[in-house]
Amino acid sequence: MQLGLIGLGRMGGNMRERLRAAGHEVVGYDQNLEVSDAASLAELAEKLAAPRLVWTMVPSGQITEDTINQLAEVLEAGDIIIDGGNSKFTDDAPRAERLAVKGIHYLDVGVSGGVWGIKNGYALMVGGDAAQVEHCKPIFEALKPLGEFGFAHAGTHGAGHYAKMVHNGIEYGLMHAYAEGYEILKASEYVHDVPAVIKSWREGSVVKSWLLDLLDRALDEDPELEALKGYADDTGEGRWTVDEAVRLAVPAHVIAASLFARFQSRQDDSPAMKAVAALRQQFGGHAVKR
Amino acid sequence: MQLGLIGLGRMGGNMRERLRAAGHEVVGYDQNLEVSDAASLAELAEKLAAPRLVWTMVPSGQITEDTINQLAEVLEAGDIIIDGGNSKFTDDAPRAERLAVKGIHYLDVGVSGGVWGIKNGYALMVGGDAAQVEHCKPIFEALKPLGEFGFAHAGTHGAGHYAKMVHNGIEYGLMHAYAEGYEILKASEYVHDVPAVIKSWREGSVVKSWLLDLLDRALDEDPELEALKGYADDTGEGRWTVDEAVRLAVPAHVIAASLFARFQSRQDDSPAMKAVAALRQQFGGHAVKR
Amino acid sequence: MQLGLIGLGRMGGNMRERLRAAGHEVVGYDQNLEVSDAASLAELAEKLAAPRLVWTMVPSGQITEDTINQLAEVLEAGDIIIDGGNSKFTDDAPRAERLAVKGIHYLDVGVSGGVWGIKNGYALMVGGDAAQVEHCKPIFEALKPLGEFGFAHAGTHGAGHYAKMVHNGIEYGLMHAYAEGYEILKASEYVHDVPAVIKSWREGSVVKSWLLDLLDRALDEDPELEALKGYADDTGEGRWTVDEAVRLAVPAHVIAASLFARFQSRQDDSPAMKAVAALRQQFGGHAVKR
Amino acid sequence: MQLGLIGLGRMGGNMRERLRAAGHEVVGYDQNLEVSDAASLAELAEKLAAPRLVWTMVPSGQITEDTINQLAEVLEAGDIIIDGGNSKFTDDAPRAERLAVKGIHYLDVGVSGGVWGIKNGYALMVGGDAAQVEHCKPIFEALKPLGEFGFAHAGTHGAGHYAKMVHNGIEYGLMHAYAEGYEILKASEYVHDVPAVIKSWREGSVVKSWLLDLLDRALDEDPELEALKGYADDTGEGRWTVDEAVRLAVPAHVIAASLFARFQSRQDDSPAMKAVAALRQQFGGHAVKR
Repeated sequence: MQLGLIGLGRMGGNMRERLRAAGHEVVGYDQNLEVSDAASLAELAEKLAAPRLVWTMVPSGQITEDTINQLAEVLEAGDIIIDGGNSKFTDDAPRAERLAVKGIHYLDVGVSGGVWGIKNGYALMVGGDAAQVEHCKPIFEALKPLGEFGFAHAGTHGAGHYAKMVHNGIEYGLMHAYAEGYEILKASEYVHDVPAVIKSWREGSVVKSWLLDLLDRALDEDPELEALKGYADDTGEGRWTVDEAVRLAVPAHVIAASLFARFQSRQDDSPAMKAVAALRQQFGGHAVKR
Repeated sequence: MQLGLIGLGRMGGNMRERLRAAGHEVVGYDQNLEVSDAASLAELAEKLAAPRLVWTMVPSGQITEDTINQLAEVLEAGDIIIDGGNSKFTDDAPRAERLAVKGIHYLDVGVSGGVWGIKNGYALMVGGDAAQVEHCKPIFEALKPLGEFGFAHAGTHGAGHYAKMVHNGIEYGLMHAYAEGYEILKASEYVHDVPAVIKSWREGSVVKSWLLDLLDRALDEDPELEALKGYADDTGEGRWTVDEAVRLAVPAHVIAASLFARFQSRQDDSPAMKAVAALRQQFGGHAVKR
Repeated sequence: MQLGLIGLGRMGGNMRERLRAAGHEVVGYDQNLEVSDAASLAELAEKLAAPRLVWTMVPSGQITEDTINQLAEVLEAGDIIIDGGNSKFTDDAPRAERLAVKGIHYLDVGVSGGVWGIKNGYALMVGGDAAQVEHCKPIFEALKPLGEFGFAHAGTHGAGHYAKMVHNGIEYGLMHAYAEGYEILKASEYVHDVPAVIKSWREGSVVKSWLLDLLDRALDEDPELEALKGYADDTGEGRWTVDEAVRLAVPAHVIAASLFARFQSRQDDSPAMKAVAALRQQFGGHAVKR
Repeated sequence: MQLGLIGLGRMGGNMRERLRAAGHEVVGYDQNLEVSDAASLAELAEKLAAPRLVWTMVPSGQITEDTINQLAEVLEAGDIIIDGGNSKFTDDAPRAERLAVKGIHYLDVGVSGGVWGIKNGYALMVGGDAAQVEHCKPIFEALKPLGEFGFAHAGTHGAGHYAKMVHNGIEYGLMHAYAEGYEILKASEYVHDVPAVIKSWREGSVVKSWLLDLLDRALDEDPELEALKGYADDTGEGRWTVDEAVRLAVPAHVIAASLFARFQSRQDDSPAMKAVAALRQQFGGHAVKR
């Protein structure tokens, strides 16, 4: 099958490779023309036979918005745009409506798998109409892992990105659960060989997971994690998940705490803890650090 | 190798079966004599050749304490007792010392794997001296999964149960991260097919894990989890993990929140929320439920 | 000074009384004409001399929006509208701009004090331009408590409602801190007279506060809080505060946890805990409640 | 009334002054003989008429334990020891029993009020037998604030320290609620004058409290809290409160989060966040800080 793919970075570049390995014809476009197969979006559109299928894999927010708007200029009725980036789910329905005016179809796809997807396949969560989902099945089949898992038609426009957002919220919580356990093990005088314990959990245990495999891998490379600073960015989905929990009145202690821990990791000093220190000094004459 | 195994319930019974399948000779003892291979601990001791190896797999706390004390009466110097139950890690060093007075060796082993261990093998975290760990290797090899994972000599007496305790604390956090994500998906109007989304994550995604496989399995059996009440006991390790976080000054928001959620699930009404309702009524004249 | 006051419910009615007691002339309007001083907004406008000052104290959201729009129809350039309801801070700047087109000035005021404000005065947090704040000072002076506290010009349009929103977020956290302590005292076997302990904290202690006074008052009325259900609504500001914490990358564990506890208090059963129960059953064969 | 008072630091020194101002005769003892009224515990005992009343106000833990043991050597049957320090509630009943063997009575008193107690009075929570509580009433009356509040006989041995422990747990939560609100206000672009907003809440608002007064005071002295580091110790009671919540199965999200925030404030780097950073690098190739 023929596919245009916009954005050939860490994710998009790997996806192009996996798709080509599966026998699909991929015309890639990237601002970095060295890796691009087309000099412009217009040329990309020319290189594809109608009805065209074009997948965007660019940073979420304004860049995705602009890319899809420009793309809509060079596509025509009957074509399909798939946004596989980390767009916010609320962008999808309005976008689908705008494109529908021109007769262009739209699917939103949440893509998980990270840098390992090229080898293991990507988990795909798709939002949109069944007809387009059906049409694009060969592409999804090539990107997803072998076997029965790794693909869901989650619902209508926005459902794909919504499912991916919640996926990432869960991911925050999972990572932080391991991280807290790791810190307790490190702090304790009881366990002498923390990496060995982590490794032992990789099979047979209730906590076995791919993230645990990766933690073990990281500890193999750097048993004390000495080379790292305890600093983590967040990419939007964690925040949106907490906002959704708030909107939907869902108690989300774990996901919120994991997100807040990331915020904290990026602070040089905590204004809140300054206030606590000020209060302790005021009522108890407790010593403070200056 | 020859082994005495005390406690033939859900865990111990399965372990006997797995050990026998691996060619070991297991003399089991249980209060329920129908499943027992010996009529008493004394008979169990008689049936084993010295130096004996006896594994206890009974409920933690007083029952384990009593069992080991009674066992110590019928064993002799050079024998080894392994406690594979969920004992608190602080019990192990004193217990090892008491047994050492009689020349009996002691190992504490954290065992993970649940009802699946009989098939998949159990993850084993061991605390104690290297000589005994070495001696018992064939038993550990038979119980653990095939391959390089599933076994760690974590440290000296108590390290095995400590590692298992933290393992379970992490388990609480992992389960709750999935649970919160599941609830958000259920509450949202965006995702129409929640079980399909969960299933899609089983391969290719960053959140793939054995627990996720089990959640998918549960949703296959009961897509709305209608048959279940949102009620969960806790078995000690979660509480001890939070106590350890407090003792060691480790921030453990996620594990503590997961534990507190279980507490909450068992309350018919919340005294704390009654106080909140009382306050809202007092200052704002807000309506209350009676 | 002359003032129009729209919305004569629990808050507005009390405010009218307090303003009149201070010698101000208040023309009140309410849908309930029995308590209203004017039959319509038009009549209210007629009864006030230009430049008019009209204070809205109606439910936040669409009702406030509609009321202010209708009010703008009957007011004229130079008049001032003050919204003292619990509007979202993001509504204020656009509203001020819309009104400015007609030459109508706007202030947003966060009002705290509950049903006690009529007697104790209300804490007022004001957003808007200094000229209008100055003009309305006599009204603010009459509403606020005696003494130096209870009033702040917090910033430009939206600052008043923003300050009130954070105030309420803090309020959630304070209430829940007391509530958790109360529950621990109740659960413990050590303290025999919980209400006496609460009462002892009202003077001399570090935790003395008005909310504590109210908790003591509630316990005087109902020492076991038997008449109440542990159920609490939330009125928007708590959610917005958490959303703001997320937007601004501020760790807000306490405020978020207090909000989540309210969500939980309104659930008959927890979908998240059903998932936890399902997982425990799957891996451990743990008993579940049906 | 006559009283021995051991420990003349920040708290004990102030209490001696307040008691003397009320007309009581206080014989103080401190290791620092410059402030001490007796050269030794023996001399202190000699200076008091039987039945003696001796109040200890020394650091909790071993120092309190040792002091009371030494004191018991120089006191006699019928005397009363009051421990007003921050002892753990579990120490009290065994201590009372040990003293009872010698016929010495014991009361445990939780004392709140900090450096302000000398002026405002101290809130006192007392554990022990009614007869001794009655006997010591004049002392309690002198220490507590004027009026009906500030004193409770909470229960039997341990109840006083238990009530004080929960008091401090609540205190952690209250402080952190204000601290989070403060940080959100500081981070936001909406509120220009944060100290003015805090000040406005001191009267009329639902969140008015003594801690808020102190926060305002701190901001008067240092409007940006520039001179402080966001660092806070914890003094035991917060940890014990969380341990009690865990023991009693009480959900205590807010108090635990406040405690964890203090732990975090003392870490140069977070091992947990290193693990999170490691995981993000492993699966996503996300940039890390080194």
